[in-house]
Amino acid sequence: MERKIYLEQTPLDEALKKWTDKFIEKNINKPLEGEQIKVIDSLGRITAEPVFAKISSPFYHSSAMDGYAVKFTDTIGASEGRPKKLKIPNQAVYVSTGDPIPDGFNAVIMVEDVNLIRTRTSDIRHQTSENPPLPPFSKGGMGGFSEYIEIIAPVTPWQHIRTVGEDIVITELILPENHKIRPIDIGAILAGGLTEIKARKKPKVVIIPTGSEIVEPGSNLIKGNIIESNSRILAGLVLEWGGEPIRFSIVPDNIEALKEALLKATQIADLVVINAGASAGRKDFSSTVIGDLGEIILHGLNIKPGKPAILGWINNKPVLGIPGYPVSAYITFEIFAKPIIYTWQGIEIKESETLKAKLSRPIASTLGMEEFIRVKVGKVGDNIIASPVSRGAGILMSLVRADGFVRIPAMSEGIGAGTEVEVKLIRHKDDITNTIVCIGSHDNTLDILGNFLKKKYPKFSLSSAHVGSMGGLIALKRGEAHLAGTHLLDEKTGEYNVPFIKRLFNENNPPTQPFDKNPPSPTFDKGGMGELSNEKIILINLVYRQQGFLVLKGNPKNIKGFEDLARDDIMFINRQSGSGTRLLTDKYLKELGIEPQKIKGYDREEFTHMGIASAVLTGVADTGLGILAASKALGLDFIPVAKERYDIAVLGKFYKLDMVQKFIEIIRDDMEFKKTVTNLGGYDITDMGKIVYGG
Amino acid sequence: MERKIYLEQTPLDEALKKWTDKFIEKNINKPLEGEQIKVIDSLGRITAEPVFAKISSPFYHSSAMDGYAVKFTDTIGASEGRPKKLKIPNQAVYVSTGDPIPDGFNAVIMVEDVNLIRTRTSDIRHQTSENPPLPPFSKGGMGGFSEYIEIIAPVTPWQHIRTVGEDIVITELILPENHKIRPIDIGAILAGGLTEIKARKKPKVVIIPTGSEIVEPGSNLIKGNIIESNSRILAGLVLEWGGEPIRFSIVPDNIEALKEALLKATQIADLVVINAGASAGRKDFSSTVIGDLGEIILHGLNIKPGKPAILGWINNKPVLGIPGYPVSAYITFEIFAKPIIYTWQGIEIKESETLKAKLSRPIASTLGMEEFIRVKVGKVGDNIIASPVSRGAGILMSLVRADGFVRIPAMSEGIGAGTEVEVKLIRHKDDITNTIVCIGSHDNTLDILGNFLKKKYPKFSLSSAHVGSMGGLIALKRGEAHLAGTHLLDEKTGEYNVPFIKRLFNENNPPTQPFDKNPPSPTFDKGGMGELSNEKIILINLVYRQQGFLVLKGNPKNIKGFEDLARDDIMFINRQSGSGTRLLTDKYLKELGIEPQKIKGYDREEFTHMGIASAVLTGVADTGLGILAASKALGLDFIPVAKERYDIAVLGKFYKLDMVQKFIEIIRDDMEFKKTVTNLGGYDITDMGKIVYGG
Repeated sequence: MERKIYLEQTPLDEALKKWTDKFIEKNINKPLEGEQIKVIDSLGRITAEPVFAKISSPFYHSSAMDGYAVKFTDTIGASEGRPKKLKIPNQAVYVSTGDPIPDGFNAVIMVEDVNLIRTRTSDIRHQTSENPPLPPFSKGGMGGFSEYIEIIAPVTPWQHIRTVGEDIVITELILPENHKIRPIDIGAILAGGLTEIKARKKPKVVIIPTGSEIVEPGSNLIKGNIIESNSRILAGLVLEWGGEPIRFSIVPDNIEALKEALLKATQIADLVVINAGASAGRKDFSSTVIGDLGEIILHGLNIKPGKPAILGWINNKPVLGIPGYPVSAYITFEIFAKPIIYTWQGIEIKESETLKAKLSRPIASTLGMEEFIRVKVGKVGDNIIASPVSRGAGILMSLVRADGFVRIPAMSEGIGAGTEVEVKLIRHKDDITNTIVCIGSHDNTLDILGNFLKKKYPKFSLSSAHVGSMGGLIALKRGEAHLAGTHLLDEKTGEYNVPFIKRLFNENNPPTQPFDKNPPSPTFDKGGMGELSNEKIILINLVYRQQGFLVLKGNPKNIKGFEDLARDDIMFINRQSGSGTRLLTDKYLKELGIEPQKIKGYDREEFTHMGIASAVLTGVADTGLGILAASKALGLDFIPVAKERYDIAVLGKFYKLDMVQKFIEIIRDDMEFKKTVTNLGGYDITDMGKIVYGG
Repeated sequence: MERKIYLEQTPLDEALKKWTDKFIEKNINKPLEGEQIKVIDSLGRITAEPVFAKISSPFYHSSAMDGYAVKFTDTIGASEGRPKKLKIPNQAVYVSTGDPIPDGFNAVIMVEDVNLIRTRTSDIRHQTSENPPLPPFSKGGMGGFSEYIEIIAPVTPWQHIRTVGEDIVITELILPENHKIRPIDIGAILAGGLTEIKARKKPKVVIIPTGSEIVEPGSNLIKGNIIESNSRILAGLVLEWGGEPIRFSIVPDNIEALKEALLKATQIADLVVINAGASAGRKDFSSTVIGDLGEIILHGLNIKPGKPAILGWINNKPVLGIPGYPVSAYITFEIFAKPIIYTWQGIEIKESETLKAKLSRPIASTLGMEEFIRVKVGKVGDNIIASPVSRGAGILMSLVRADGFVRIPAMSEGIGAGTEVEVKLIRHKDDITNTIVCIGSHDNTLDILGNFLKKKYPKFSLSSAHVGSMGGLIALKRGEAHLAGTHLLDEKTGEYNVPFIKRLFNENNPPTQPFDKNPPSPTFDKGGMGELSNEKIILINLVYRQQGFLVLKGNPKNIKGFEDLARDDIMFINRQSGSGTRLLTDKYLKELGIEPQKIKGYDREEFTHMGIASAVLTGVADTGLGILAASKALGLDFIPVAKERYDIAVLGKFYKLDMVQKFIEIIRDDMEFKKTVTNLGGYDITDMGKIVYGG
């Protein structure tokens, strides 16, 4: 068994050209043939030939009104002074809307414009609004009666008649080739007399998940297992692009099994995707197998994520070997599979919407690699801000959370903060406009809050980024956020948040209702906002919460306080600098005279309370500082350290925004929300929703 | 049987409020409940509750690299000068990417950064690029051998390890409620350990087509039948909006049958739609039946199309009675059904894209009625132009061809040409940008040409509006079209098109290659464009074609020429003024001294050759002037009158546009196109694609 370990790093453009050239060489870089399908099942399908009308619509002259069909020659000369009488049914025939016009008739008079007259009685009914016209008794008038209509104006030929072909003329082009069928098109094709049309075959994409460590969702998991989810992502993409995904069962890392699956796949597919085994590790057989059965065009790209992709051909079928990390899989699949799936259908890819945005943080990039950075995008006032999210190719949630991509060219070493970048959106522009950007400290209640907002007001979303309390206030100051979650303890005054806000926002004028300086139970005023300055900060209390040491159940290392952190047998895990929890940690260490460098793990940082909890639970660290809710969530024990106030800071100019008001309304008034937070444990909601500063 | 004939004309806003208030009163103006579904089938569904992770991902510490797991304490002190040897498997264990880290180990060194050493032989292999590392033979080394790795630097704790929860921490919120599931979300939910989630039930919409005249597509048609297509349009819309359409069979105009269908529908549906019978004609039973079974909120709106709509309730289920004309049905269904279908799913309607456009023609509007005008939208240079299409509520093709809607408020009597209007798009903006706007004379080859363009270049479309040759040139002049089809015969010179262009575009300088004045066979120069002025016109020949009288097979009225048009027994049908064919007609009438007012039907105008042909075929007229191709299409006889030149006029500044070049390329070079045109009959393609002026 040979191992090919060194991948090429082919530039993306070159790779795409090689890939496309091969389709051209094989003469399959063109739409697939058509298949006969029922028109009523054709929604979203693509026409494989032009659709011409087989009949006209309407296919007979029909009345456009309820009224009387007449012959226009009979009406010449009628006037108010000299009305004309037309005999039913010889000269006038009642027709409802849509009825065919009898042969020889060529105009319709609206029922409102005639008087119906019956002779042999004196009952000549004149139509008035109190006296609507009777329906005719029969075509020929009733036994003993003669019926007439009386008219007071001549008609124009063909008035109030829908003539044959008014909508569609037989042989007329209803839809061109390569047209995606919409609901209205179905109506027109049916009206044109067709029940079947020729639609493009859907491109068949066989997806082969591979790997002995891969298991089906729902399996009993043991260490080393990976839940197979990539094939489902790829299948979903194929569906969205109009193709037909065919997912094979998981194939273990076994060359013969892989060959068998690939050969079977090339017999039924238009495109085969094998995932993963595309890299050059010990168990990466994809390139070997593709090479044995067919031909490898290239192995390895200069893109990140996505580097180890393989482009190959077996039995005249294109085979894509894509990396196992989900983000790499997603990106390479979109680059190489999407265009050909569209070409095969005869349609153009609609370019994603793009947006110019300012980068909130610098991005470093590897020279020589084209990078695809996932970003969250927020519209804050007139600023559109793009913030990079986690870059790991294995972080699926980075894609779930992302609003778009920023591409960094191979020849760049990175992009500075504040630079304008182009973001290719993967969410709708409206969603971005309707998203509250909350940057700052992490608290579990924010997730709950985001969910309540989306639940009560589906239009709005909460995007919360965790950069710590201080980072949040700075983002607010820089116009990059609507809100910031903050729990900054001022060492000198013992007061939360307010001193920092005053310093940062240069608020020289004391607030009109100064916040009582003795936490935790100040008296707040709930309502009555005065004139609100755009640049002023309003602080709204979310919760008081317990901070403390998270430790394994039973506290096996017997941790009691900060003094224990310097012990040789203790591995600590820290929060990032700028976070309120980090400030709390450093304050205590300073007070107790403990040198940080004595603490093992002080340099390893997590960004969320749940990150700390997970690290403790899984043995990465023995303890870290976090909130009680996080400890409860993962079944850890908790050594209390401090009760602190966690507020939401809102910039004045955003306070009145509808979405912000809805957000505040939930905090202030939603009993179900309060109950849910209380049930998390460790929270005191006494002042929830109260304005604690700046009101 | 009572007839309710007078509809209300409730303003749309008021109607919508009444409708919504009823949903609120019945407490169903909120999302439907959830149902358990498989994650792998959840694409496009909406979460009915937040999705929290059941396991972390990864759920064990796993290697992020191919390499060796080590304990970081063992590595302290290693350096290039003093390498450290770590024994396999006690101190170092080979791991592939994704493998679990063995208990007690807490860092990974990349395979590239170690030397693998085997004692008891002198074979100490140093890794170089020629000498890649061997895979370990076994976990414990091979019989007789001891294996070590040699390292030259200490590790940092947890380096190259994906710790538990790096992607998703157990209990973490993966998706909020009311979230539409994308492919990537499916991956994240599966990775979070779920196989099922609670998704919103799809709103069930029962659609009841009614009418004794209505027949299923594919039926043998007799006069008076209408092919049922509305229900398929509505079902398609329900699918696109995320609901589940349930279409009943056609119910005849019979009160008992209608009642039975409605009662059955209200038992299974969330929303019932009955179509049609919503008007107040003789056979319009919908309001009677809804009133008998339940309650009518209102009947009749102040909108056009859509006036006769009914809003009702039966058995606590909303019932929508919508009009029979397809455009009315489409508009009222979108107004009243779409919002509630979205509300029931817990999602927001994404507002359609809108575009500011200049109106090309004035629109008159009925005071007191809110009108929905279908428009075609074209981007011509920097101008975005909206042109109203047919306004008949029965013209399905007006919706097929439309790019969007312009709403005219009830209190307006119309909008003048040149006014800026807001267009709500129903096509993608890109499609509009990539559309060639061709305004002018109609010829059947233009339809063929449009189809060839779309077939060869799916990205591009041809939009052709038929306003006659003169109207086309004026549109070109006003910057409302890229191209114009024209066949204008100058009476004085006998020359086609050129004199009109010179007059209209004030071209004082004679063209450098003046067009030979003797049609039909001038000598043209094919290539060699000189410097092209933006405002200059280039004329490209499309075809020569035969104009003549279209008559029924066998020419029953024995029509031989224009002299016959004034006969008492002849009904003529004319083309609209400004069309080349009308000019031709008027020229001959003048030459022959025939007074137009002597000709019956002279005032009745059609806009296309096919319209003329259809009118003759169906007896609306005995004859009209049109092209041979139209006569052939409908199997008519043809009395030739003249051979004329039909050219495409292109404005200089658009000549180089990619889409225009592709268009011209087809005319000039596509053999299949030439063959298709020849097969239509009546065309001479000798000069097809040649530049006849302005090159």
